[in-house]
Amino acid sequence: MTDPPAGSAQRPRLLTDVAVLERMVADLAARFAGIFSEQTIYRYVFESYTALRRTATVTTHLTALTRRFATDRLTALAHSEGVLVSGVPEVLFVCVHNAGRSQMAAALLDHHAQGRVHVRSAGSTPADEINPAVREVMSEIGLDLSKEFPKPLTDDVVRAADVVISMGWGDACPVYPGKRYLDWELTDPAGRSAAEIRPIRDDIDRRVRALLAELTASAPAEGATS
Amino acid sequence: MTDPPAGSAQRPRLLTDVAVLERMVADLAARFAGIFSEQTIYRYVFESYTALRRTATVTTHLTALTRRFATDRLTALAHSEGVLVSGVPEVLFVCVHNAGRSQMAAALLDHHAQGRVHVRSAGSTPADEINPAVREVMSEIGLDLSKEFPKPLTDDVVRAADVVISMGWGDACPVYPGKRYLDWELTDPAGRSAAEIRPIRDDIDRRVRALLAELTASAPAEGATS
Repeated sequence: MTDPPAGSAQRPRLLTDVAVLERMVADLAARFAGIFSEQTIYRYVFESYTALRRTATVTTHLTALTRRFATDRLTALAHSEGVLVSGVPEVLFVCVHNAGRSQMAAALLDHHAQGRVHVRSAGSTPADEINPAVREVMSEIGLDLSKEFPKPLTDDVVRAADVVISMGWGDACPVYPGKRYLDWELTDPAGRSAAEIRPIRDDIDRRVRALLAELTASAPAEGATS
Repeated sequence: MTDPPAGSAQRPRLLTDVAVLERMVADLAARFAGIFSEQTIYRYVFESYTALRRTATVTTHLTALTRRFATDRLTALAHSEGVLVSGVPEVLFVCVHNAGRSQMAAALLDHHAQGRVHVRSAGSTPADEINPAVREVMSEIGLDLSKEFPKPLTDDVVRAADVVISMGWGDACPVYPGKRYLDWELTDPAGRSAAEIRPIRDDIDRRVRALLAELTASAPAEGATS
């Protein structure tokens, strides 16, 4: 595919991902027709792929994950621009690796909310996979994280959020008016056993239930983000 | 700016960055008029800011760095689409942290090439700053890295490159036809002293000179990327 460079090891690669991504652009261009230009969708698909590939160690399902990540980002962007309206509060959980705390919080809130809240999560420096002990303790309470994956924080998901909840992340999230920024102090499950993570999970569960009660009591009007 | 949330610590923030970034979008929209839509430029500016903010610890100059990063990415994209033509080979160096090897290689090639090659660098998981010992050994040979900063790898800069050189990075870079992908095996300067980094610098210097001789001998035609 490329000329063999003299005196350097060449890395064998497949170009099939590019063909898959180009078909994905066409699909999403049809889905978001009248909302985003094909240029925007093309950039979203390929930048989402590159962003996930930077940190993924297993790249087998990378194009499938790219489809989910790019679609979710485009949906978030359309929501923040008032073009697509979810009609429910949008909550974003952010931690460092998007492999433990923010994944647990997102799964728990999504589970309890039953459609009354829309939930996303992201990380500043995403890990290569969800923490296996976190998957285990979530599985014990019937929540399956096997399809989830660590994602880098992007501007679009911040904009779509009504509530941004950071966990152990300092000052790294863009700030926009009209949003609530909360900071939850939680023990980091990284490097801990399932037995040590269970109390963290239960702490998150209590906080998530309180947040849900508050969000559904105040019932923000549609499009309150913009 | 936001309602004080009950029962949670709120993080104090400034919204001034957003105003600066919005002026930046207007400037860049004028500069890239007829090439990119304002929507594309808006997304580039704000996603570039969020990407740098994820890993930066010192955020004092973040909007200035965002301007450079977003401008360079838009220039790369315009080049890859054949709209802007640099007329010289484009080389991209990629390492893990964009804090040592790829920064040294970029500075050395840029220095030797004297305009005959255009150089970029990026990392898979960018560090929060350039390795100070790397800055020191580069300063010894008259090359100033004080204005450089670690940047995440993006699709646009890969597309703009004629030659992509990875350093200790495995399989994490998107692959396109018509490019040369090289892999340089170099000692990682992370955690090493200046005395230990000098031989790495000199190794990179030799490789960079050989690459430059090869690139300027073969003299690729303009627009060979597309």
